[in-house]
Amino acid sequence: MATRSGRRPRTRGMVLDRIRAARTISRIELAASSGVTPATITQVVRELMAHELVVEVGRGASTGGKPRTMLQLNPRARYAVGVLFERNTCVVVIVDLTGRQVARTSFPGTTLLPPEEALAQVAARVEALLGTAGVERDRVLGVGLVTYGPQDRRAGVLLTHQPTGAWFGYPVAPRLSELLDLPVLLDNDAAAAAIGEHWLGAARSDTFGCIYMASGIGGGVVLDGQVYRGSSSNGVEIGHITVDLDGGPCDCGNHGCLANYADPTAVIRQAVATPSLGRRLELDPDDPDVMTGFGRIAAAAGAGDPAARALIERSARLLGTAAVTLASLFDLDLIVLAGPSLTVAGPIYRPVVEEEVRRRTFARRAHPVRVITSVSGSDAAAIGGAVLVLQSELAVLELDAPARA
Amino acid sequence: MATRSGRRPRTRGMVLDRIRAARTISRIELAASSGVTPATITQVVRELMAHELVVEVGRGASTGGKPRTMLQLNPRARYAVGVLFERNTCVVVIVDLTGRQVARTSFPGTTLLPPEEALAQVAARVEALLGTAGVERDRVLGVGLVTYGPQDRRAGVLLTHQPTGAWFGYPVAPRLSELLDLPVLLDNDAAAAAIGEHWLGAARSDTFGCIYMASGIGGGVVLDGQVYRGSSSNGVEIGHITVDLDGGPCDCGNHGCLANYADPTAVIRQAVATPSLGRRLELDPDDPDVMTGFGRIAAAAGAGDPAARALIERSARLLGTAAVTLASLFDLDLIVLAGPSLTVAGPIYRPVVEEEVRRRTFARRAHPVRVITSVSGSDAAAIGGAVLVLQSELAVLELDAPARA
Repeated sequence: MATRSGRRPRTRGMVLDRIRAARTISRIELAASSGVTPATITQVVRELMAHELVVEVGRGASTGGKPRTMLQLNPRARYAVGVLFERNTCVVVIVDLTGRQVARTSFPGTTLLPPEEALAQVAARVEALLGTAGVERDRVLGVGLVTYGPQDRRAGVLLTHQPTGAWFGYPVAPRLSELLDLPVLLDNDAAAAAIGEHWLGAARSDTFGCIYMASGIGGGVVLDGQVYRGSSSNGVEIGHITVDLDGGPCDCGNHGCLANYADPTAVIRQAVATPSLGRRLELDPDDPDVMTGFGRIAAAAGAGDPAARALIERSARLLGTAAVTLASLFDLDLIVLAGPSLTVAGPIYRPVVEEEVRRRTFARRAHPVRVITSVSGSDAAAIGGAVLVLQSELAVLELDAPARA
Repeated sequence: MATRSGRRPRTRGMVLDRIRAARTISRIELAASSGVTPATITQVVRELMAHELVVEVGRGASTGGKPRTMLQLNPRARYAVGVLFERNTCVVVIVDLTGRQVARTSFPGTTLLPPEEALAQVAARVEALLGTAGVERDRVLGVGLVTYGPQDRRAGVLLTHQPTGAWFGYPVAPRLSELLDLPVLLDNDAAAAAIGEHWLGAARSDTFGCIYMASGIGGGVVLDGQVYRGSSSNGVEIGHITVDLDGGPCDCGNHGCLANYADPTAVIRQAVATPSLGRRLELDPDDPDVMTGFGRIAAAAGAGDPAARALIERSARLLGTAAVTLASLFDLDLIVLAGPSLTVAGPIYRPVVEEEVRRRTFARRAHPVRVITSVSGSDAAAIGGAVLVLQSELAVLELDAPARA
């Protein structure tokens, strides 16, 4: 059936998303929760069933009338790929239509290579993983590539000098799309981590904030199960807000940025400046593998080293300031600490951040703000990248083509 | 016609809001822009016309088919009252169903009085203004009371010690509602100012941020023509974010808050500490009328007094930091400087804030961020309070009662 206006894809995508979130739902429940008329729901579900994206599964509990036929997604109907692309580590995941991970691989970051070579390696890894997982190419909706911001998301171009100057202005999404012959969506790693946390179940709420710390500090906000976008999907940059009016310039263009006092690079710099600690942990401030150095400091802190513990707690206190600002601006009642650095050091960070938020958030008398730690390490961002593909128009645009065999 | 589910009021409210925003619109345009089926639009418009909220007005331009009947709101069908309630000034406005102001009054702030007496004065002023304007009571949807946060908006209770401790926990909305025998919605003054700016036309965009400065500093964000709410409508508190990690405690519970360095109270304190300036402008740091003192400093700055100019520019530079944080977190491309203090001193503040935003905002390479000054003084917040009533369920809930004569 042809689409006569721009509205049908939006409704189809919304219906798919609601079935995915509910796992099992009736048509009546879909209509009631979405505000779309039952007649439209019936018609959209018919189209989704014709393409085998949705299947009927038994009957739900009756509420007095006739039993309701329940709907589920057909997990193997489509797949999406998520790629987390950063300085130290790349993670590739494949998820099915329900968002469940079916394959995963990771490899050392390739981002110090020239873009052309780095992307060729990523493409080879994606191809290999699709092969290993036995996923047919024509069932892959596309790839969600998540990495540093700022970005021109629509053009698929990076507007950052991270990890090297060669990436600034580079058409990373179009180029990977050519290499893989698949659609590629570019997105922010922290925004993807936020939706990934939602999906992996760490954040059961539909609305929450996420502070993501890998080698740097980013953030994401999920509102009603969708990533907060703002005008260009470059928001929630919680690492690049001024916390020191007299602070020095940051690479981002601002000054006195929180990240320069609190992120793993800053913690390593502070540890190296603490001579006995830097020597004891064999820290090299010029080692691009920030995660390993930070991991050593966090492990020493966890083992009771007072100097290491003081540095990690100082970083945690600063992340508490970031959490207070995020909660006071977006009025959140849940903050998830995510990303590999906060997974490693979560037991120290979480209680400190929670205490700051409890004491300092503007709306604390209106409602509490919970702080929880993710257990997903780097994977939330990659899974979020794949989920953003499932939530995108890619999931429904092709329905206007003839149904597949 | 009875409402069988919770969905119809939502659709009715959305349709009213879209007609209000468009001023004149056809049913087909309503359906296309909202994603609601034409059949549902036709039915909802029929109900709204039966209650004389909407009228047909001539025909729009044909696009080849038959000419379209256009719809408008009936301005005099309903009214809403907005009350800005603050330490130094209260403003009361009445707007018609289209959001146009039909009456206005202001009087010195009553908030140092005990709540009971202050609210009795406000109620008397509202009653008098309705009488002067000749607005029939049964056409008044309700009152939007906008003032300091944090608030328990649902209960209509203030959770702040501003302006005096007697207001903390006071059921300000229920009490004013009893006095006036009208529904009263409580809301944040800066959020109301944001939607008021949208309505008064300063911000032509549907999505923007607003920094509101009266005696303190607040903020609001409008997304797609609606106030950003978060979990309890206590967000966007841009004056209470930490900009000095070693800064002293703030009344809000946080420390190193921007407001303590930049707001009119802080500027007066700094001016008094500049002996010749404090004496020359006859400033009294204990005078509760902060606006008058700040107005004198701003006027001296505008007239070229170097000491006054330095203080106002310092405050402007700090407000620039607030604007950068707001833009980098919400990813905004427009910021409106609003409220009486920024109306008075806008010519000095605007270029300074704009320069900071242009140099420092995270996403500046993805898109520019414009900074404009409101011309509406205190009125945007009061008008916003009334508009929030028009946008609320109050505008459509009564439609389930029999149509009025």
